Amino acid sequence: MPRRPLITITTDFGLNDPFVGVVKGVILGINPEVSIVDLNLQVSSYDVFDGALSLAQSYRSFPVETIHLVIVDPGVGGSRRPIVARTMDYKFVAPDNGVLSLVYEREENVEVREIDAEHYFLHPVSKTFHGRDVFAPIAAWLTRGVEVTRLGEQITDFVRFAAPKPKPAGEGVLKGVALKVDKFGTLITNLTPENAPQLFSENPSPFKLIINQKEITQLRQSYSEGQPSEVFAILGSSGYLEVATNRGSAAKLLKVGRGVEVTLELGRPPS
Amino acid sequence: MPRRPLITITTDFGLNDPFVGVVKGVILGINPEVSIVDLNLQVSSYDVFDGALSLAQSYRSFPVETIHLVIVDPGVGGSRRPIVARTMDYKFVAPDNGVLSLVYEREENVEVREIDAEHYFLHPVSKTFHGRDVFAPIAAWLTRGVEVTRLGEQITDFVRFAAPKPKPAGEGVLKGVALKVDKFGTLITNLTPENAPQLFSENPSPFKLIINQKEITQLRQSYSEGQPSEVFAILGSSGYLEVATNRGSAAKLLKVGRGVEVTLELGRPPS
Amino acid sequence: MPRRPLITITTDFGLNDPFVGVVKGVILGINPEVSIVDLNLQVSSYDVFDGALSLAQSYRSFPVETIHLVIVDPGVGGSRRPIVARTMDYKFVAPDNGVLSLVYEREENVEVREIDAEHYFLHPVSKTFHGRDVFAPIAAWLTRGVEVTRLGEQITDFVRFAAPKPKPAGEGVLKGVALKVDKFGTLITNLTPENAPQLFSENPSPFKLIINQKEITQLRQSYSEGQPSEVFAILGSSGYLEVATNRGSAAKLLKVGRGVEVTLELGRPPS
Repeated sequence: MPRRPLITITTDFGLNDPFVGVVKGVILGINPEVSIVDLNLQVSSYDVFDGALSLAQSYRSFPVETIHLVIVDPGVGGSRRPIVARTMDYKFVAPDNGVLSLVYEREENVEVREIDAEHYFLHPVSKTFHGRDVFAPIAAWLTRGVEVTRLGEQITDFVRFAAPKPKPAGEGVLKGVALKVDKFGTLITNLTPENAPQLFSENPSPFKLIINQKEITQLRQSYSEGQPSEVFAILGSSGYLEVATNRGSAAKLLKVGRGVEVTLELGRPPS
Repeated sequence: MPRRPLITITTDFGLNDPFVGVVKGVILGINPEVSIVDLNLQVSSYDVFDGALSLAQSYRSFPVETIHLVIVDPGVGGSRRPIVARTMDYKFVAPDNGVLSLVYEREENVEVREIDAEHYFLHPVSKTFHGRDVFAPIAAWLTRGVEVTRLGEQITDFVRFAAPKPKPAGEGVLKGVALKVDKFGTLITNLTPENAPQLFSENPSPFKLIINQKEITQLRQSYSEGQPSEVFAILGSSGYLEVATNRGSAAKLLKVGRGVEVTLELGRPPS
Repeated sequence: MPRRPLITITTDFGLNDPFVGVVKGVILGINPEVSIVDLNLQVSSYDVFDGALSLAQSYRSFPVETIHLVIVDPGVGGSRRPIVARTMDYKFVAPDNGVLSLVYEREENVEVREIDAEHYFLHPVSKTFHGRDVFAPIAAWLTRGVEVTRLGEQITDFVRFAAPKPKPAGEGVLKGVALKVDKFGTLITNLTPENAPQLFSENPSPFKLIINQKEITQLRQSYSEGQPSEVFAILGSSGYLEVATNRGSAAKLLKVGRGVEVTLELGRPPS
């Protein structure tokens, strides 16, 4: 028995309009057997990086063969190309605007193709809603067994941006940034164990995280270890260093939001 | 193999309560094979027109045989009737309060029936949650093959309202209205190419759109053609003239919201 | 033909992050045939009682054999245990923090087990996202036929709290509380027909509800019976006395929110 096909949706269309419903209607019109999962429908409007981040935090939790449909598309109707990308385990259907950059960064082999097989599109193709007319039908046809090789030629000049990396700023000092504030008010920074292995060793170094002039010096293993109103660092579930508080919003306590600078000062390991 | 049945949900129940979950539980209790798609769960509270508009923007993107369940029902428990409407391609289950008006307007043949087949309802029927006790079970039984003729008698006095139409206001002038502001801040007006064919001809007329004393004179083909901070007109994906800006909120730039007057002044075509 | 298995999700993860999508990806990786229904994804952050209430309002509307996955888990990564609870009709997978208290209250026989069958977890198990690593896989394996007896030993010292009950405050006076304000601004109180049968008899007593110094003296059968701007009492669809207004927000009119005191004064029945 073949697995039931699975498509995820990541988009900035939000939940106050029927846009996402329309995308699903088009998919189910082509393949009524598909399961559709909302990955994140509330990406910040027009924000390609925010979409890339949501996708990066989650796409590997899905079963092999899942098709990830990513519609954060401020350039719709312009010259940006529709693409399909294939990794060992997944396929991605998206505009070629960099929204797959963090996938390219994480995967060893990604094959990217410009989609020009217009006979799979919904006609007439609007200039304002390619989610409906281009991306949804392509994702649905993939679940019907259409090969990516039939969608268009491979390209190598696809758009990719580098995710912001922490920058050295003197001896033992790194300047990073909060990539996102999650629903709980936890800051997801761009610092990872690779940037600061000392923090995650058996004998961890003392450290200071400085955010909006406040100093954070505790590293916790779980959110519930935090003392009341204490803001602490913690290794989050998608591999980034987070700044959190127990049963509250670290963003509110620190009075900061997405994009705030996060300075990490590493001391010497205790001897 | 029969298609997997499909029910969409349009409602003002929102996402902070388990109401929509309950509706789905009832449906899946009657037919566990149904696919359910959220069309718009965040219609403005009690706002029949807003529900009608979401439905009109999207119902035709679904495969034939889809059942559209529409629960915007401020009159629940009172005298308004539950109805089932059938067009060539779809069925609709809704309260008879006008929420299907834009469907009646778009479809040539609509058969409307008052539902009185109470043996399909969940008993005891509450006076406050017919979504659960009346509409969900009826929609689910339709997917099980129950004929609409068994749900009740045909009626012709169903409630319908006219969507607000643009009004002539002097030579070449039309007064319309913003029906909705979408998640991106784009105004969806009630002006269509039928009202102003000059705008969409090969040799389009100059024009002025006046909203909150600001003049809009550009017509763009895609959102991304817009200059930074420029507010422009554009033909939207559901057939209405929209007022938008590239990567921003036209509603914020114009400082307006839903319901604002939109005056269109058409010039003579260039000769 | 076996029924299609069904899992519901109740959580405070919200809709702005991919957390819920990840939970669904894990479930569908283990059993691609599952239907997943969002029961309430927007429980107040860290609020175990709010999750318990959403679940209580809705779990019985689902078909027998449904698995209710409840992830409101401020103690994740600490000492709280993961549990599976079984009633005659349903199974529940949750942290042992009291979030199932209202289920325990409503059901005659509940068997609760501490989950220690770690070979069903996703490894390595994070300390911050047991929704993904513990609860989702357990719920999914249950749909694959794994017996609860294989998940761990029965326990009797599970955490349960008493829902706040109305308290007598003098002759014919009860002091209750608003458990929740729903999306429409309706107050859901903890008063039920059991507390005040006089209100729901054929010959109902006069009464006063006092909230924020305002007096409510009308009991309505349906929302639409209310006069414009009138705030009234009504028996809600999940069995609680509600305080509502017709096509508006009672919470706004009364200038109150969740947790406000609700005093009920019962008069003598008219003779």
